[in-house]
Amino acid sequence: MQADARYEKVLKTVRARLRPPASELALLAGVQERIVGRLRKAVPDEVEIGTMGSVAKGTALRGNRELDIFILMPRQWALDDMQKKGLAWAKQAMRGIKTELNYAQHPYLKAYVEGVKIDLVPSYKLHNMERLGSAVDRSQLHAEWANARLNERLRDDVRLLKQFFKALGVYGAQTRVEGFSGYLCELLVIHYGGFVPALRAMGSWRMPHALDPQKHHQDGHALKLFPGVPLVVIDPVDAHRNVAAVVSRTSMARAMLAARAFLQKPSAEFFFREKEVHSAARLRNIIRSRGTCTVLLSFPSPDEVEDVLWPQLRKTAQSLLARLERAEFRLFGHYFWSDGKRALILFEMMESELPAVRRAGGPQVWLARDVEAFIKRRKGAANVHVEHERLVAVVRREQRTPKEVLEEALQNPAKLGIPAPFARAMRKRKWGAALDLLKDAGLREVASDYFSRRL
Amino acid sequence: MQADARYEKVLKTVRARLRPPASELALLAGVQERIVGRLRKAVPDEVEIGTMGSVAKGTALRGNRELDIFILMPRQWALDDMQKKGLAWAKQAMRGIKTELNYAQHPYLKAYVEGVKIDLVPSYKLHNMERLGSAVDRSQLHAEWANARLNERLRDDVRLLKQFFKALGVYGAQTRVEGFSGYLCELLVIHYGGFVPALRAMGSWRMPHALDPQKHHQDGHALKLFPGVPLVVIDPVDAHRNVAAVVSRTSMARAMLAARAFLQKPSAEFFFREKEVHSAARLRNIIRSRGTCTVLLSFPSPDEVEDVLWPQLRKTAQSLLARLERAEFRLFGHYFWSDGKRALILFEMMESELPAVRRAGGPQVWLARDVEAFIKRRKGAANVHVEHERLVAVVRREQRTPKEVLEEALQNPAKLGIPAPFARAMRKRKWGAALDLLKDAGLREVASDYFSRRL
Repeated sequence: MQADARYEKVLKTVRARLRPPASELALLAGVQERIVGRLRKAVPDEVEIGTMGSVAKGTALRGNRELDIFILMPRQWALDDMQKKGLAWAKQAMRGIKTELNYAQHPYLKAYVEGVKIDLVPSYKLHNMERLGSAVDRSQLHAEWANARLNERLRDDVRLLKQFFKALGVYGAQTRVEGFSGYLCELLVIHYGGFVPALRAMGSWRMPHALDPQKHHQDGHALKLFPGVPLVVIDPVDAHRNVAAVVSRTSMARAMLAARAFLQKPSAEFFFREKEVHSAARLRNIIRSRGTCTVLLSFPSPDEVEDVLWPQLRKTAQSLLARLERAEFRLFGHYFWSDGKRALILFEMMESELPAVRRAGGPQVWLARDVEAFIKRRKGAANVHVEHERLVAVVRREQRTPKEVLEEALQNPAKLGIPAPFARAMRKRKWGAALDLLKDAGLREVASDYFSRRL
Repeated sequence: MQADARYEKVLKTVRARLRPPASELALLAGVQERIVGRLRKAVPDEVEIGTMGSVAKGTALRGNRELDIFILMPRQWALDDMQKKGLAWAKQAMRGIKTELNYAQHPYLKAYVEGVKIDLVPSYKLHNMERLGSAVDRSQLHAEWANARLNERLRDDVRLLKQFFKALGVYGAQTRVEGFSGYLCELLVIHYGGFVPALRAMGSWRMPHALDPQKHHQDGHALKLFPGVPLVVIDPVDAHRNVAAVVSRTSMARAMLAARAFLQKPSAEFFFREKEVHSAARLRNIIRSRGTCTVLLSFPSPDEVEDVLWPQLRKTAQSLLARLERAEFRLFGHYFWSDGKRALILFEMMESELPAVRRAGGPQVWLARDVEAFIKRRKGAANVHVEHERLVAVVRREQRTPKEVLEEALQNPAKLGIPAPFARAMRKRKWGAALDLLKDAGLREVASDYFSRRL
């Protein structure tokens, strides 16, 4: 059997499983028609109603019942005016339906109708390659660009790639995931001409890798525009935007490995593997057999939207981690997590306690003034001596355990660089050890994720 | 009181204490006359007898009863012939006196007469700046050069510098000390014009520092001739020899610090301070209060002369140390010691036991073949996952304690780079902990030296 035939055999059944059934499409179409109709009646003639998102592009996964409906207003309107009017019309159109005001980059209205989640988004009406407003405005151009290039085969392949990434845990541009957005999936499938060609390309990526589907830039220039990131995908509708800006090295690396693994041994499992959550007994075994020191710091999750919460959580974890390393603990690994209610930071270290003394390096002996100052400052040291050309003092260590180090540091969280909402939330901190992770299902999932990270 | 007067007050009494008394000088002169007389009778006319060493130069410290007597033969003689004949005449001259054959760079005869140690050294007769033979031959030229420049005041000052270094523990070119030889002391005092000027100069040295008293080389060239060493002192009688070749960074640094300390607060203590050996109780306190992990490796000292033993001991300690660090132990300090009978290597570490697992770094994900090989090789790993662009495996650690690591490594000492005599001697190794150092006076001295190293 040839390679492509082998893939086709697997992908055929997967495609069918991912495609929304006619009933679902009918439901979505019906709801969309009703809401768009209501909106049309609410807005003046110069305002248009547009449908975006994966449903509008025909790339939605089965069961993904979400509609993005845009209220498109003239560019001449002031931003504030545009948003206020848009939200007012949206509310008017949704009278009798429970709505909720939400914020991404800009405010929008969220509602549920017959189990379909609807986002009603005030936005400027843009024309292709016009000077761009915000990410919200750009959605129209993305939908336009994608729809002009997608056919039914490619739409199926976009679904394959989305689900492939989803099962791997790298689907979504949220800061929590640091993965591949839906639009990025569409872009990759369109650019490479299908799911398998996209995997083939990814399998031979290096870091950094740049893609410029619309050839906005000269060869090699795209990488220079976005230094320091592993993946650059120039937005076809905006030459100065990297669609893959949030993709982390780890997400990209895992996608590359999975792509190669699938091509080598295709299987439906790549699309439908479940996350493994170990039993308490199994986790206890894993933890005990490592002989490391794991410290848990848990506290109430600050009340922030996900895309604010996660970067701050990451920053908090990294500040504390840096502090532990400065105290000479050797980090074996770390992890952070939140379910919106509680937050947790885990540090696994090579040692549970440090010696009672530490070495404090001093100046080179010929720096006479520094030498005198060092000797004076280290008067209480257990010992001051010379090693090669430098002074070394053996001094008492103030904090010997991770908890002592972090408790001391958390007396002044701002100095550590911990964001204010986390500094506040951590006032109610609790300390734990690895075995405390066995207590409930949520924590067992965290423990499984951390201790049994997959490739 | 002016600075120089302050020094003079201290140095006056010290000078008197260091100068050999008339009785000692008479004893040395008497013994020398007798031995030289006997030798003259034993050798043919073309062979000369020369007296070298600090007694001949008038720079010997009180109580240093050592004579260096050279049997100087024509350069035309073959090396082997010269040495054989020289030793034969020396033996003949010493008939009735117990002698011992010794080896430095070349063989020589050692004897004791009336408490005076006598080295009888066969050597070529050299003339100043003639093409040089060995270090042994060079002694004649050193004695000649120094004697031509020393007066009684400078001889006193050479004794001051020798004793200053001796009390500090940096006197002697033996590999055990890595310090300043007697000749180097003479050179420094002659070059700088006295003890205090020499200290002043040393106090403002940086590393590396070069001195070229006879101006054999252009400015700055001496340093380039001997890269990597902290101190270069070009031998006045041999432009291609660094008299300070064995001076270690630590010895040089300590000399510099002590020089500044004396100049700041002159005191006779700098010349007569005794090494402090702590009581067992005090040492127990010191050791316990550090909370580190100290491992002792002791074994019979290999039967080698000091200048072979110590470099090998250093090499052995450093090989083992490197092995411990490769195993992820963090060295707090180390020490090695031998009294000629037993040898001891001490490692003080930040941790006594490492986790049961370790992180094994893998290839970057785009190196497809390496990735496959890594995954295959790490099949039994507790976990293989991706961190940024690399694979990381969590694998079982074979050895968790320092002793386990070193025992495993010592299965193949040659591979570690351990010299054969030490590999053999270490077959009778014994392991100990820090508190085993309290057992006897010799070990307590080792412990005091290590745990209370002075500046």
